[in-house]
Amino acid sequence: MSHSSSDRIVSALRERIMAAPVGAQLPSTRQLVAQFEASPVTVQKALRTLIRQGVIESRPGVGTFVRAVRTARPNDYGWQTAALGSPQHRIPSLSSALRATPNDVIALHSGYPDGELLPERLVRAAFTRAARSADTVSRPPVAGLPELQSWFASELAAIMPAGLTPPAARDVVILPGSQSGLSTLFRTLVGAGRPLLIESPSYWGAMLAAAQVGVQLVPIPSGPGGPDPDDLDRAFAQTGARAFYGQPNFANPTGGQWSAELGDAVLGIVREHGAFLVEDNWAHDFGITTDAAPVAARDDSGHVIYIRSLTKSVSPSVRVAGLIARGPARDRILADTQAQAMYVSTVLQAVAVDVVTQPAWRTHLRSLRQQLAARRDLLADALREHAPAAHLESLPRGGLNLWLRLPDGTGLHRLVSDCEAQGVVVAAGDDWFPAEPAGPYLRLNYSGPNPGAFPEAAEVLGRALADAAPRPGT
Amino acid sequence: MSHSSSDRIVSALRERIMAAPVGAQLPSTRQLVAQFEASPVTVQKALRTLIRQGVIESRPGVGTFVRAVRTARPNDYGWQTAALGSPQHRIPSLSSALRATPNDVIALHSGYPDGELLPERLVRAAFTRAARSADTVSRPPVAGLPELQSWFASELAAIMPAGLTPPAARDVVILPGSQSGLSTLFRTLVGAGRPLLIESPSYWGAMLAAAQVGVQLVPIPSGPGGPDPDDLDRAFAQTGARAFYGQPNFANPTGGQWSAELGDAVLGIVREHGAFLVEDNWAHDFGITTDAAPVAARDDSGHVIYIRSLTKSVSPSVRVAGLIARGPARDRILADTQAQAMYVSTVLQAVAVDVVTQPAWRTHLRSLRQQLAARRDLLADALREHAPAAHLESLPRGGLNLWLRLPDGTGLHRLVSDCEAQGVVVAAGDDWFPAEPAGPYLRLNYSGPNPGAFPEAAEVLGRALADAAPRPGT
Repeated sequence: MSHSSSDRIVSALRERIMAAPVGAQLPSTRQLVAQFEASPVTVQKALRTLIRQGVIESRPGVGTFVRAVRTARPNDYGWQTAALGSPQHRIPSLSSALRATPNDVIALHSGYPDGELLPERLVRAAFTRAARSADTVSRPPVAGLPELQSWFASELAAIMPAGLTPPAARDVVILPGSQSGLSTLFRTLVGAGRPLLIESPSYWGAMLAAAQVGVQLVPIPSGPGGPDPDDLDRAFAQTGARAFYGQPNFANPTGGQWSAELGDAVLGIVREHGAFLVEDNWAHDFGITTDAAPVAARDDSGHVIYIRSLTKSVSPSVRVAGLIARGPARDRILADTQAQAMYVSTVLQAVAVDVVTQPAWRTHLRSLRQQLAARRDLLADALREHAPAAHLESLPRGGLNLWLRLPDGTGLHRLVSDCEAQGVVVAAGDDWFPAEPAGPYLRLNYSGPNPGAFPEAAEVLGRALADAAPRPGT
Repeated sequence: MSHSSSDRIVSALRERIMAAPVGAQLPSTRQLVAQFEASPVTVQKALRTLIRQGVIESRPGVGTFVRAVRTARPNDYGWQTAALGSPQHRIPSLSSALRATPNDVIALHSGYPDGELLPERLVRAAFTRAARSADTVSRPPVAGLPELQSWFASELAAIMPAGLTPPAARDVVILPGSQSGLSTLFRTLVGAGRPLLIESPSYWGAMLAAAQVGVQLVPIPSGPGGPDPDDLDRAFAQTGARAFYGQPNFANPTGGQWSAELGDAVLGIVREHGAFLVEDNWAHDFGITTDAAPVAARDDSGHVIYIRSLTKSVSPSVRVAGLIARGPARDRILADTQAQAMYVSTVLQAVAVDVVTQPAWRTHLRSLRQQLAARRDLLADALREHAPAAHLESLPRGGLNLWLRLPDGTGLHRLVSDCEAQGVVVAAGDDWFPAEPAGPYLRLNYSGPNPGAFPEAAEVLGRALADAAPRPGT
């Protein structure tokens, strides 16, 4: 290592400064020149460095003094810009769906259900039981606790038609939440620079994971009824993609659900193209007027990779998801999840399996369905009355969100900030489009706190929409 | 989609078979030929497909019958081979350090301390307290619980010399274990195809994360005293690397510890090359004859990215680690961890901060130190007596492992399987080398269950070593 003589002086002076009391005066530049046998320019440079480092301060005409250290000072991390370079893949900033907000606003932006929709008593009891057990200090098998693997497999097996081979417990990989599963799937099934077909609009977390891996997103238009199979078939043929990410049940954000015929058609297409359907069954427990009907239940050929998360329906603190994959894909996925996270906390897995195997879990799901129905209808009715310009294309049969088309030309960002200024937080639809948005949309989540305020929120939105309406000639 | 006529028959017969009782007889080939107006060859092909699918069985000379379905049958996932292609980066298979073993063996291979070395009472009490709180159903800020961020920052601040700016709570990112932190760091600071300097030997989990990301590992020889700064300086200059992964305290597997002078020299080198030191302080709580002295405590310029995990010292069920990074690097790291895992369970974070802020945690660490010392010495003494050919280069001053050099030419794999046949599970050193191993090594973990059996294990190893000794002329 070569050190300049100015570095040498900095280093020597720092040692003295650290030993000196705050406010002590440093020798003059002339004295330092003599002591270090260096030029005045070099000494001045060293002093400037120490001033920049915040350890001394210069009082013009008086001298140089030791500063009170350990105070926060602005460090210069500019060197990191070169070391970091441009990111290989640019990760978008955090979605508004994850934003924390004060308690006194009406929050319609969040992606997570309010505590009153969670089985809190069951979760606490399960944590209490786990706290008394050896789960607190034990390490699970890397693929997951066998009883939780079995539960995920049996849930899918229960709705499979006879004649198809149900998944085995060993086909299940337990993950620390579905987000890490999406990263793993896009990395193992697709890979950087390669195409992934995705519904548009679709879940922003999937686009975040795709950006992290650097896959090339190919948007397939989708709505309340799901995508058009011909679009999908054409996109597979044109891009050579080997995977399609979709949410066949209560899609986020549209609330759409694929019909059984569409599910079969999509299955036929992925089979024909030797490809995978990544089925994100995020809203399995959030059916309202119908149940979730996973496409995975109609496949035993390994074409559907299925993820079901318990984070949203059990508790955000129980970050556990199950991924079902068969064949060599399962092995490659398991290897990646291990390299990524090693394994999932035994306690969280034990709590998850405890909660979902209680008889009271079924009771909770029935009550949840009623609450979601009431909340959905309350918000939809209030919007119809107070914000008729916000068009609800389809009342969702499940899920947590209303997806509203606003009039063409609506100033979306002004609308969102106008609402927020009046205490109503809403999410601009742009976040859910893999490319340019198809128009101005809003996503309103009806599972947040304080549903009693939905009418008030609809009024605020109605007024803001009137203000944000496109003027003639603009 | 085009279907062959054999496919058409398969499809039609499957429907009938699904509706038929188990054991029902199918029409004869002749009858099927007539029904489907197909050639006998086509019908035979369809029947063979159905047999392969496991839905019917042929009893020669009797006929073809419907099988009991829903039994496991070997599915053909061969199509996935084309869909998956070669992996972009080959991830090595799981290390022996994660292997589960029966209870009746002497397990010296594991990377995790036995339950009796964990603060089980504290962990259970913390889970019990968390179970009573709103942590069970709440979602934390994405970077982590503020009180846990503060704790990680204060732990490092407490050992920083005066004059350096200590890290702030906001410089801390809470992770679901250090493994996911390594993946994130290698992805954000290095990137696929780019060089990462790494001690050799080093932690296999780091090599696993590196393989997943596809970084190019550049091994720097290291031993009980750490790497040679000249080697490091040269490697930075030759490769243009921007990061060096190291374990300055009680390195896994060697147990090595860098001197303060080496730490400063390495800091000087990374600064000179505008690079990062990724400091994996995995064994912070496992000091025996000395304390861990993180290099990060001597840096406030953002050159050291510091990871400290609580998984091994608190509990394998409390998968929580803190990563400290300053400047823009912190922002890029946080964005990646969010894309990867969104956030860490509130309960696990609350339990972690609860345990480490109890006065009894300090008491536990003092007792842990004594137990590790006793176990280390017991195993080292037994090896000296019963397996003198296994050379311990240096008695580690902390950590969980002895790193043993075996005689040149020792048949390592035979040795490992000979030991295992006699109930002693040991880990071949090869897993810890990023490239070719520098020689035959064993890693023995002295923190596993049943230390009373260490002398017996040493005897087994000694006998196996004698058997595996290189013979003249081989």
